Amino acid sequence: MGKTQIIAEPGSHQILITREFAAPRDLLFRAHVDTELLVQWLGPRNLTLVIDRLDARDGGTWRFIHRDSDGVEYGFHGVFHGTPSPDGIVQTFEFEGAPGHVSLETMTFEEHGDTTVIHANSVYQSVADRDAMIASGMESGLNEGYERLDELLPRLIAVG
Amino acid sequence: MGKTQIIAEPGSHQILITREFAAPRDLLFRAHVDTELLVQWLGPRNLTLVIDRLDARDGGTWRFIHRDSDGVEYGFHGVFHGTPSPDGIVQTFEFEGAPGHVSLETMTFEEHGDTTVIHANSVYQSVADRDAMIASGMESGLNEGYERLDELLPRLIAVG
Repeated sequence: MGKTQIIAEPGSHQILITREFAAPRDLLFRAHVDTELLVQWLGPRNLTLVIDRLDARDGGTWRFIHRDSDGVEYGFHGVFHGTPSPDGIVQTFEFEGAPGHVSLETMTFEEHGDTTVIHANSVYQSVADRDAMIASGMESGLNEGYERLDELLPRLIAVG
Repeated sequence: MGKTQIIAEPGSHQILITREFAAPRDLLFRAHVDTELLVQWLGPRNLTLVIDRLDARDGGTWRFIHRDSDGVEYGFHGVFHGTPSPDGIVQTFEFEGAPGHVSLETMTFEEHGDTTVIHANSVYQSVADRDAMIASGMESGLNEGYERLDELLPRLIAVG
């Protein structure tokens, strides 16, 4: 439903993302940690998401692979700080195409009546790393993933 | 030996720390992950360091407690992103006195002949969190800890 807002101030280490969804908080949280749901929405439509591991607990590691139609794979991995819950998810993030560049991601789910706003805060080890993430085209992948999530959520609400 | 340099640009999410030590890289790394060594130097002299847990592997969690002479305890914890090695340590950090405020710390050990320079990069979820860390008096605790490490290293080198 909503439009994704991305704030990346010049010279900052940070990216702030805000997006509203027509779903309760607990369901939106579940869409972020349930592997069967994640593969239905995370990332652009032309890539297949493979979940190598997702251990949603304090110190649990996660690794996702995006695979294109030619079989080219893009891996991402990280670790959870604290146990993910509807109160929030804190995790590290590393794109395996740029090893050694790590960011810290914090996601919260703010419920307002029938909708929930996701706030995602990413901070990078350097401003250059942050700028490279912006330049990578993350915005279109993010928007497309969130559109897919908009489509998935009513189906999940319908089945209860 | 060296003097600790701390760079914290106004309005930035980051703290950069540089410090030179008269020790080889592998030994300096060991002083950061060996619990018997850590308790001999980490933090100011008037606090006792208790290591609740330190599991130095990818996804391993750590928790340290600083205890003062009145028994007051200050807890810190986090998780390792990647397995710590002399090539570097990447971890999250949360002071339990300010729960929910997490930073990402990256430490590298750069050997130059007989000395090794530690570079520590911390990025915080907000500029306010970064400013609060600076205001907390971290500089004096850091300096005192590094002076204690300066004293410990020759004893470790002597025993081989």
